[in-house]
Parts: sequence; structure tokens; C-alpha cells
Amino acid sequence: MSVFFGKPLSVINVGLECFAASIEPVTRVDWTPPAGGDEAAARALAFLTAHPEVDAANAKAYAAYERAEPVLDAIGIASETIPGFEGRMLLHAGPPVEFERMCGPMRGAALGAIVLEGWAENLDSARGLAEKGAVRFAPCHHHDAVGPMAGIISPSMPVYAVRNAAGGNRAYSNLNEGFGKVLRMGANGPDVLQKLKWMKEVLAPSLRAALDKLGPLELKPLIARALHMGDEAHNRNVAGTSLLIRRFAPALVRAGIDPEQAAATLEFMHGNDHFFINLGMAACKCMMDPAHGVPGASLVSVMSRNGVDFGLRLSGTGDEWFTAPAPVPDGLYFPGYSRADAGADMGDSAITETAGLGGFAMAAAPAIVQFVGGTPAQAIANTRSMMTITLGRNAAFTLPALDFTGTPAGIDARKVADTNVLPIINTGIAHKEAGIGQVGAGITFAPMACFAKALVALARSLKLM
Amino acid sequence: MSVFFGKPLSVINVGLECFAASIEPVTRVDWTPPAGGDEAAARALAFLTAHPEVDAANAKAYAAYERAEPVLDAIGIASETIPGFEGRMLLHAGPPVEFERMCGPMRGAALGAIVLEGWAENLDSARGLAEKGAVRFAPCHHHDAVGPMAGIISPSMPVYAVRNAAGGNRAYSNLNEGFGKVLRMGANGPDVLQKLKWMKEVLAPSLRAALDKLGPLELKPLIARALHMGDEAHNRNVAGTSLLIRRFAPALVRAGIDPEQAAATLEFMHGNDHFFINLGMAACKCMMDPAHGVPGASLVSVMSRNGVDFGLRLSGTGDEWFTAPAPVPDGLYFPGYSRADAGADMGDSAITETAGLGGFAMAAAPAIVQFVGGTPAQAIANTRSMMTITLGRNAAFTLPALDFTGTPAGIDARKVADTNVLPIINTGIAHKEAGIGQVGAGITFAPMACFAKALVALARSLKLM
Repeated sequence: MSVFFGKPLSVINVGLECFAASIEPVTRVDWTPPAGGDEAAARALAFLTAHPEVDAANAKAYAAYERAEPVLDAIGIASETIPGFEGRMLLHAGPPVEFERMCGPMRGAALGAIVLEGWAENLDSARGLAEKGAVRFAPCHHHDAVGPMAGIISPSMPVYAVRNAAGGNRAYSNLNEGFGKVLRMGANGPDVLQKLKWMKEVLAPSLRAALDKLGPLELKPLIARALHMGDEAHNRNVAGTSLLIRRFAPALVRAGIDPEQAAATLEFMHGNDHFFINLGMAACKCMMDPAHGVPGASLVSVMSRNGVDFGLRLSGTGDEWFTAPAPVPDGLYFPGYSRADAGADMGDSAITETAGLGGFAMAAAPAIVQFVGGTPAQAIANTRSMMTITLGRNAAFTLPALDFTGTPAGIDARKVADTNVLPIINTGIAHKEAGIGQVGAGITFAPMACFAKALVALARSLKLM
Repeated sequence: MSVFFGKPLSVINVGLECFAASIEPVTRVDWTPPAGGDEAAARALAFLTAHPEVDAANAKAYAAYERAEPVLDAIGIASETIPGFEGRMLLHAGPPVEFERMCGPMRGAALGAIVLEGWAENLDSARGLAEKGAVRFAPCHHHDAVGPMAGIISPSMPVYAVRNAAGGNRAYSNLNEGFGKVLRMGANGPDVLQKLKWMKEVLAPSLRAALDKLGPLELKPLIARALHMGDEAHNRNVAGTSLLIRRFAPALVRAGIDPEQAAATLEFMHGNDHFFINLGMAACKCMMDPAHGVPGASLVSVMSRNGVDFGLRLSGTGDEWFTAPAPVPDGLYFPGYSRADAGADMGDSAITETAGLGGFAMAAAPAIVQFVGGTPAQAIANTRSMMTITLGRNAAFTLPALDFTGTPAGIDARKVADTNVLPIINTGIAHKEAGIGQVGAGITFAPMACFAKALVALARSLKLM
């Protein structure tokens, strides 16, 4: 090259490696076009970057998230508790999806719920009912609710009601069924439905009686403490579950319920280290909703998946969903299963990442790599990486391994597009077919296409495009 | 220097910095004389280093420790459970110490126990009794037992009985009283004694009834899990306590005891995040005892303190104690207290470090630095440092933050003397006077003098000196 140009060159190569390789020595700058090369999104990003109205809106939205104080104050029945829950209706995870387009496990869960509710006698007639449109489906998120994996909430299911003591909004989730063959993973056999009945008839009334004794339960300090005990509050909930049992146990004894029921309730919680997740998700939904609906804000208020589409909402673009195909997670598979068995990413549980937990708080949970794969160093690197795409550090959720820094929270869609760093999501993996259940757990990423669409919509909402 | 010697010098400076400073440039080698400069110990070390009999003995002792399977299988009354517990006798922490030489908090605890047992009507007459020799004192360790801080175990106190399912030996500890004004910290007022009575009359019988329902409780997996949840099992026991509550709660409900008693028992455990420590200590004692008594072994089988002396036992030197003055720990003090209030290091709880937990497992517990001081990076460095003075890594106790390496375990007195790296001990700090209680928590080190004496004794036992 020196011969060609007649003097030694000082070269900086930006982006593509193939140029650099032929011009050594060279200084490499790692660069990719913003928003994964989406032209419209890149233009939107140029308009939105450092825009004072967007910055101010984000600050307002983030403050509302940070100020939220989720409190468990009731355990009710879905149809009596969740607003707008009427008639033959089922809630599901993720953005809207009609029965015909649902993935295998979500269809399986929906059919199971139809039989559970007594609307059909068996799974076959349940399918007939669903196919002829005799059951209404709506996203949990349209009803202030969240559900893990398939996220099917049917009218008679017990639900947590979480209130934001600093704002008044409410959020809901169903109760966790445990491992293995469970409705949320698409299993729907008689044993699955039998357990759901037991949860309705024994578990929920017992917990409700205990909660009446206990009084409202503050969830933010409980999650904060669980982070100091190795949870990240999405795919590792052993500490949150343990702390919940500690709080409920004496009240369960004092609640005057049948001792056999109290003991069975305690054993059920003890037998499922993920028991806390649904309550944690409701807490996250309760913290994110106050951040939603601030005009101009590029803060991500919802990330969710239905097993077909990944859906995103921004605070500043109202109730519009920005969707892209849901990815298949990378992860560790249970013995006998492989990636070929995996369904695409599913569940409202990415609300934990949206609120700065889960994949964003992996630095708190080095032991989780035994469940989702990777190394403890990668777990810490994941949290550090999420610091580049977030608006703040939540001082209520500190990470001991990072010198008690707050967890990165408040995803800024602009930063995601600008850096091409995608939000990391810890997730469970369901078998792609109905009726089988969980086959593994792993890590996935929110698709760039959702952020690209959202930024264009945000720029338009501000008349910038 | 070059002028003086007529040519440039290549200098290596070993040890003292003051030489290096005047001969720059120089390569520094950090070195201090072994055993802190103790000549006899250094000679003993020279004889013992790489000695095949010592190496073989250590391997045997370490294997016995590693193979141990501590199981909680009974909760009894001290006088009926602990061997050789007869008459007006009190067990105390650390190596032997007569009443006159006891530190303030241990005297306070002893007097409280005398009143608790009804041997005297008040603390003054209790002191008279103790001073005239009407009460026998013996170390807990002489009776297969361990007690935190003052470690006073009196005949009527309830105790855990832990059995080694892989060997048959047993170890014992009393039950944890909670925080603040407690006997183990030297407090002895009416409220302290009232709580001890309640523990005897309500807590222990309730736990015993639950344990009867549960069956023997394996402690090694429980501790292993607690390490994955941010405990180091000495000064941080929030996970161990939570896991214990989870195990006991359903059985407490099913045990047919008065619900108010069951609820009070659960609340007492829930109210004390250190509740697990005594049971963990008994488990550690149960794991270390099989490693004791192997002729020639330089493995440390006991480290313990009575607030005056620090005491050490080696596996290969029988029941002899090697003592030195107990240090005052560095740490964080509770509001209103300072180092001037601190008593010297006290308690049998260093059995946790002896077994590879506590200060040796700090890499598992970054959040502990808020209690004992330092930074999370130092917590990890402490564990790494202990790898230089130990015989193995306990594969049963893995440390997620160190890529699931086993905790460093089996202190080799030779390595301590050779490297001058002292065993790190996490500890509570009692007020130096009787009747006040805990004033802080911190970190301290086992004194070199104990190791120096022990090595000389070991060399003599092998006729090497």
C-alpha cells in the first residue's frame, strides 16, 4: 500500500473487516449502521437523538417507574378482579394473536383453559369452540395483566392484584403452577387441569387468608433482597420464593384454615423455586405502567412475546404494538430435547427485563448460568452491556457484584438502535408442540425490527417525519 | 551504583523495601521469613515441608472431611444429649479458660446461664458461685460441641444433634437467640433469660416435633445451596435461614402442636437472619472431627477463640491447644460504638472457616461487605488468597462467582507458616464489657503464633526435632 500511495499510511477502518484485512497496519473501529441498517429508522433516530422533548419525556417516564411502590394487597378471581374480563374470554401472553395464528404451546394452553372453565367437555370440542370464534382472546397487557410463557388467564383462575402505592395503578398475574407438565408451557392433560383446580380451591384461598392476616406486602424491598441472594427475578427466583414463604408461613398458621391445607400450600410453594416469578412480573408491570403514555418518550414500557411475534410498546406511542417474528432462544435443553424441539420465544415475563431485572440484573445471579447457559463472567458482562441502552440505574435494585450499582433500567429505544445492542432476555423454552411442556431455558434478544418500527412511529408522533 | 561497581547492575531485592529504594532499577521479590520469623517454627517447617508422611496424613484427614455427610437428626436438651455433660457445668467457646481469666462478655454470659439454671438467684450470687469454683467450665470443643461468641451452653439449653452419616461421629450446638441483647454477646438481663426460657419451652419442642415429621435433614446440600444464594455461612446466613424455614414450615404445621406455638416459632426464625449459624457450625464441627486425630497431619481441625486466647488444634497433634492472644477484629460498628468498645475475637464460629466456609467462601457472598466491611472485589480476593493455604477445594461447596470452583478447605499449617498468609475469619464483635451485647461485625485473622507452636509440636511428634 505504501508503494501505491508513495508514503506510509495511517488508516482507520470503520465497520467491515474485509477492508481492514488488506490494509494492515490499520486501526479498527467497530461500527455497524444504526438500527441494523433500517433506513427509515436511522432517519428517525437522527431526528430523535438529543431531542429535548424526547429527553424530557424520558426523564418523566423513568421517574414514574423509579417512584413506583408495588404492593401485593389482594388475591382474587380473575373475572372479578381484572378489569374488562367478561364472558368467554381468555387472556394470553404477548401482542395480539388470533387462535389460528397461535403457536403450539399457546393453543394447547388455551384449549386446556377452555376445558378447565367447563366451556367444553374435552380438548377436541374446545378446539371446535375456539376455531368457530366462540372464545374471545386478548393480550394480558390489554388488561393490566401479565402471564408467563403462554400466559393464559381464564376467568376462574386465581390472580395476584398488585397496587402501586405511589401512583394507584394496579397490575395482575396468575399463580405459578410449578415445573414440568404445566398449562403455561402448553400441557393440558387431566393432571394439569386437576392441579389448576387445586390451586383455585386450596392454594389461592389459603394464601388469601394469610394475606388478610399479613396485610399488604411490599414487593420492591423483597425483590431488592432477592437480588442480594443470587436471583435475577426472571429465570432464577429461589430467593424470592424463599422470602415469600418466610413471610407467608406464620400468617398461614394463624389464618385459622385447615392445617392440612396450610401445610399443602407451604409444600407447594417449597416444591417450586420459580413460585415467585408471577408475583415479580405483576410487580414489574405495576412499576412500568406509570412510565407508559408520556408523549415523546422513547422509553420501552412493554416487551412481550406470544410465541409467534415479539411485541414492543414505547411510552410515547400509546397502545400501538411494534412487532417482529419471535426468535428461538439459545439455551440449555433438558435431557432428551434439543433446539429442534424449541418453540419460539413466548411470554409476558420479559416485563422483568423491561423493568431492569432478569437479563439486565444477571450480575446478581452468577448461579443462573447453570440454568440458562454461559459463564458467570458473561452474566456480569450482560448487565454491563445493558447499561449502554438504558436511561438510569435503579437505586432500589442494587447489584453487589458491581459494587452495589443500581440495575440498568428504562430501555431507551434510541440507544438500542444507535448501538445495535439488543435487550437481553432470560427465558424458559417450551416445546413447539402443544401438550408437552418445558424443554429448556436460555437467553434471547429483543429483535431490532421492533425498535426500528417504534422509532419511526415516535418520530411521526412528534411530526419529525 | 553503576559508577561504584564499574558496570550496570541487574539487581533482585528479596524482602525489605529499604534496600530496593536505594538500588533502582531493581526487581522486587516480595518475601518475609516463614512463620513470621519464628526460628523454631521455621526449622519445623523445613523438616515438615514435602514430608511424605505428613502429605499422606493430610490426604487421609482431608478425605475424611470431604466425605462427611452431616445430618440434623435430633434436637435435645444439652445435659441429656451432649456426652460428659454432668453436674453444675457450663460449656464455653474457645480453648480452656478459667472464670477469672474470662473476658467481660463471656463472664456475663456465664453468670446469666447460672441464673437461668437456677443455681443462683441473681447475677451477684452467680458471680460468688463462679468465683468459689462451684461451677465447672469446659470448652464446647471438649464435648463435640460448638457455640457462637461466648458459646455458653448450660445443661437445660436445647441443642441440635448433628450426625455424620458417612462416619457416625456427632456434633452439637445450641440454638440461635437472635440479635441485640443476647447471652452469647454477654447480655444477661431478665429479658435475655426470659427469651432463653421461651426457646427451651416453645421453640425447641416445636422444632423437635417438626423434625420428627420431617426426618433427618441433610445439611451439606442445604449449605451448598445457601452459597449459591449469597451466604458464606458464617456472618451471612439469610439464605440458610430461609431454606431452613422452607423445610420446617410444612412439618411445623403438620406436627399437631398448638398453632400459636407453631406461628411464634416461624416468626422467631423469620425475625433472625442468622438463625441458621448454630446449625451450620454444628455441621462444620461434624465435618471436621473425622479429619482430626490423623498422626502426622498438619491439617487444622479446630480454630476457636474465647475472647482472651485464640486456640488452634491440628489433626496430627491430638487434643493439644496451641494458643496466642485473641486479636480485636477490624470491622463495621453499629451506630454509637467504635473499636474502643470492641472485645477481642470470640467464639467457636471459626469452625466455619476451618471447614472452608465463612471468610474462605466470601466469594459467594458479595453482599456481606455491607456487614463486615470491604468491597466485593476484596471478598473474592479473600477466597483466592485462602487457596494458597489449603489442601483442597471442596467440590460439594461451589462458588458461582469463581466459575463454580470448590471452596478452599483444609488449612495446612505448613502453608500458613510458609506464606505468612493467615486464615481470614468473618466474625461478630461483642462489647468488651459484660451485659451490653453485639457492637459490630468484621474480619480478623488467626494469629501466626498458634501455627508456629503447632508446627513445632507436629515436628516433635514425628521425632523430626
